Amino acid sequence: MLREAIYHRPKNNWSYAYDRETVHVRIRTKRDDVALVTLIHGDKYNWHAIGPQETPMAVFAQDELFDYWQAEVRPEFRRLKYGFKLQSGDEIWWLNEQGFHAAPPSNIYLYFEYPFLNPADVFAPPAWVKEAVFYQIFPERFANGDPSISPANAEPWGGEPTTSNFFGGDLQGVIEHLDHLEALGINAIYFNPLFEAPTNHKYDTIDYMKIDPQFGTNEKMKELVNACHARGIKVLLDAVFNHSGSRFPQFLDVKELGANSRFADWFHVKDFPLEVRDGVPTYDAFAFEPHMPKLNTENEDVKAYLLEAARYWIEDIGVDGWRLDVANEVDHRFWRQFRDVVKKANPEAYILGEIWHDSQPWLGGEQFDAVMNYPLTEAMLDYAVRGTRDGKQFADLAGYLLAAYPQQATEAAFNLLGSHDTPRLLTLSKGDKRRMKLATAIQFTLAGTPCIYYGDEVGLDGEQDPGCRKCMEWDESKQDRELFGFFSELVRLRKEHQALRDGSYELLYAEAGNNALAYAREADGEKFVVVLNAGKRKASVAIPASKDATARIVHGEGEISLNGRKLRVSLPPLGYAIVKLD
Amino acid sequence: MLREAIYHRPKNNWSYAYDRETVHVRIRTKRDDVALVTLIHGDKYNWHAIGPQETPMAVFAQDELFDYWQAEVRPEFRRLKYGFKLQSGDEIWWLNEQGFHAAPPSNIYLYFEYPFLNPADVFAPPAWVKEAVFYQIFPERFANGDPSISPANAEPWGGEPTTSNFFGGDLQGVIEHLDHLEALGINAIYFNPLFEAPTNHKYDTIDYMKIDPQFGTNEKMKELVNACHARGIKVLLDAVFNHSGSRFPQFLDVKELGANSRFADWFHVKDFPLEVRDGVPTYDAFAFEPHMPKLNTENEDVKAYLLEAARYWIEDIGVDGWRLDVANEVDHRFWRQFRDVVKKANPEAYILGEIWHDSQPWLGGEQFDAVMNYPLTEAMLDYAVRGTRDGKQFADLAGYLLAAYPQQATEAAFNLLGSHDTPRLLTLSKGDKRRMKLATAIQFTLAGTPCIYYGDEVGLDGEQDPGCRKCMEWDESKQDRELFGFFSELVRLRKEHQALRDGSYELLYAEAGNNALAYAREADGEKFVVVLNAGKRKASVAIPASKDATARIVHGEGEISLNGRKLRVSLPPLGYAIVKLD
Repeated sequence: MLREAIYHRPKNNWSYAYDRETVHVRIRTKRDDVALVTLIHGDKYNWHAIGPQETPMAVFAQDELFDYWQAEVRPEFRRLKYGFKLQSGDEIWWLNEQGFHAAPPSNIYLYFEYPFLNPADVFAPPAWVKEAVFYQIFPERFANGDPSISPANAEPWGGEPTTSNFFGGDLQGVIEHLDHLEALGINAIYFNPLFEAPTNHKYDTIDYMKIDPQFGTNEKMKELVNACHARGIKVLLDAVFNHSGSRFPQFLDVKELGANSRFADWFHVKDFPLEVRDGVPTYDAFAFEPHMPKLNTENEDVKAYLLEAARYWIEDIGVDGWRLDVANEVDHRFWRQFRDVVKKANPEAYILGEIWHDSQPWLGGEQFDAVMNYPLTEAMLDYAVRGTRDGKQFADLAGYLLAAYPQQATEAAFNLLGSHDTPRLLTLSKGDKRRMKLATAIQFTLAGTPCIYYGDEVGLDGEQDPGCRKCMEWDESKQDRELFGFFSELVRLRKEHQALRDGSYELLYAEAGNNALAYAREADGEKFVVVLNAGKRKASVAIPASKDATARIVHGEGEISLNGRKLRVSLPPLGYAIVKLD
Repeated sequence: MLREAIYHRPKNNWSYAYDRETVHVRIRTKRDDVALVTLIHGDKYNWHAIGPQETPMAVFAQDELFDYWQAEVRPEFRRLKYGFKLQSGDEIWWLNEQGFHAAPPSNIYLYFEYPFLNPADVFAPPAWVKEAVFYQIFPERFANGDPSISPANAEPWGGEPTTSNFFGGDLQGVIEHLDHLEALGINAIYFNPLFEAPTNHKYDTIDYMKIDPQFGTNEKMKELVNACHARGIKVLLDAVFNHSGSRFPQFLDVKELGANSRFADWFHVKDFPLEVRDGVPTYDAFAFEPHMPKLNTENEDVKAYLLEAARYWIEDIGVDGWRLDVANEVDHRFWRQFRDVVKKANPEAYILGEIWHDSQPWLGGEQFDAVMNYPLTEAMLDYAVRGTRDGKQFADLAGYLLAAYPQQATEAAFNLLGSHDTPRLLTLSKGDKRRMKLATAIQFTLAGTPCIYYGDEVGLDGEQDPGCRKCMEWDESKQDRELFGFFSELVRLRKEHQALRDGSYELLYAEAGNNALAYAREADGEKFVVVLNAGKRKASVAIPASKDATARIVHGEGEISLNGRKLRVSLPPLGYAIVKLD
């Protein structure tokens, strides 16, 4: 047994409260190295009187190097003391906090501990999030419903997007096209920034309390929120709290008055005056962007201002949550207070962080409900679109991610295939809709909430910004309606079947060097098998099935045959099938 | 290279801000497996323009299975993107968030990230803590300075302690014996509970706002604090916030009125009435102790009550911090608010958690400043007193602990060899003062604040509670003055030399099966070598020294000889020497 590979450390993703009664305990071992792992657990205050219990652990995820095991326990008195017994052939090791032992350690103080399951510490994203299918709207480019408020220099709808031009998209435009969203089936919208700002992307805020006049008014926003809610659609706003824009009045004041400004401490000024020297601002900024000065979120006045904005849009306007821009560069202390304010305004509000890397430090339950799942994005694109990752490499990354966070974080993860910051999915797919569909089929059949970037559903293409921020196509004859059918079908399937949302996940087929992939999702008495072929040739995958199973393809293409205890799925090049097993 | 053994995950003890400019990055490899580790790092926004920097890492700790490497970096723009290059002979691997690569990965988004060094998140224990030497006082047994307030049933001073008897120790007694503490040299007192409670140990609080009348009054407490401060002595109180006593008026109210009590939600009641069924209370309690009902620290009124107590004793009475009883069973959310209240009352107040196991989840900077370092306690006792752990096993555990927490947590750790909850050190040593001194010599020459349990310094003995709670011996003719000299000498040494407090630590000698041990501490241009012999025979240890070094034993016994580049230290059985190298 490779003891050096074995890892466990209490809390975070290794032992955590899944809900108010349940603790998940996990351990990592070398892949295919350990035959049996048993969780030895009990209450520390009656351990010797009653004796510890033994719960077998199961491998729930694998990656290139490791197996990840999990057991679920419900400690009667909410206190959990525990250790592990690991077996491989005749070799047996007991593991506690002080390492490996050849016999069960008698000193229970040296066992691991999840000391008390306090409800206040339970990480509980809003229940609606894992039921949600999101749709991302870049407001300037979705629909121009009120030309009277369009910028004076707005260009005709459908023109070539540049980094600085305008087309007049607005809130009224969104309201007028809610039928389209309802037909697609989505039940949540994520809006890129809506607050007053000079640029077309609005990430350089002037006023956090005000809808940009070219989009509408705060009242119009309330109307939009109500219209969405009437259709069962939630609304998520973009909170750009890491930095303001350079036309933010408080920043202009510091620019004018320097250290004498009463807002001097609102920013991180290294040297007055505020200027750019050798390409570097004399104040902290987003990246080195002088027009995006970093806000000092440790300053009490800044906090009060931003937290009032956080409260206002939730409580007074009724939006359902915040997506936090550059969330990883703001202090954790601010985000904890932010969560308190937002959840007080609406306990069901959703807090989603933009973090591109390992996010456990924000997913302890006291900061975010979820993060944008970019590592999965890359894996889906590598496998289905770029062809640079085979089935096993995809499965390894998916397994790693499953183990990297508490289960509730995985269930609420925000899974995207593109956004205003990346080339469009169809463009990445070099126009091959089969690749686009392959990626999307994965996105909709894994845990986490999928998000559709506006226009992908009707065939919009475009390179990296500004190309990916084209005007939405509203001329149905120019829309790809076949693609729309594909998306709406997937949305419907996911909404109808719990198994596809937060069902258990089991990898069924992934081999190095092979582009086929199969996994099962199961919940609520239903089982689905998702079989994918990212290769350019036909593929056929055999999957174990129970003797009297029946199977049908509920979405996708290919052929299935049941033969004894085997389900064989044959797929065309770049094809996939979602199979329901009964 | 054993890739499975390699571990790094951002934040916690693996990458953290040591101060407002400095980030420590650590990685674990299999022991003696990797020759060279280089940290590849840079700013993510100018990574490609400027190119990453390379900083060599050094092994700073080892345990049985692993080497732990560290590098220190000061990112100019407070943002840190990083990866590792690991070399072993011809084998080279680059490690980023997605695993190992045979060539440097070009996609910097997949590197590890410490996104921004925000001052609000820096874990900063008060600076005075690492200068402190603590003295723990169990108030009922330290000194009876005012017999007029002693309990009616108080027994004559010096009698046999039982779990329930009283001897009349009080605050006036402490005030009258501050000369003793000043002569010993300590500069901080940790008091077991002082608040009104029925038992002699006072862990079953009746009133958190009131000194127990048998100890004195709140005014007397203020007098004591002022008297301590006048001598440069800090005062730490015991905060028993996990549970109250069963005579706490709010609990009595619930006992009487059941669900109708306005305090019904102050506790975790599972079923009314409050009673004990088959040995288990119908409410959550400390362990299964009916007289210690667990407080509902999620209830806003309970929080307000306890947080006001937390504030009052710091701000109005002037105490310097809190030791948190059963700290691990109270919700993290409460402790975060507690820290805010305490640090607002006094930014230099010290927050010390009683946690017996792995404590990283409380040492992120937003909860505790330090924890009671029980794992080290056990290691010191096993090595020096019980003889159940050899030099290498001790060194392995010490190495593990060094790597387990951020450096500032190690520097502020509360290192104890006994308390009101354990047999006395002299008793554990079976009366052999050599073992007692050996353990104490380690305690005073490692990072972390040492604490002397009252009476140990004059030879008090005693088994587990109640034996370890004997009355303090004030008859000098019955005190072990030689022992007092030993303790005061160690205190003085530690206070005089920064190297012994927060100097660097280097293990010099530890071999399996051998009871000798040697390590160096170095800071401020001074270097000490601590050599210990926990064996029953003479021992001799050779240590590398520079050619023109001089050496002298500043404390302890044994003989030293310098021979070329070797320092040889010869020790008697159970002997030790603290050697100063110049």
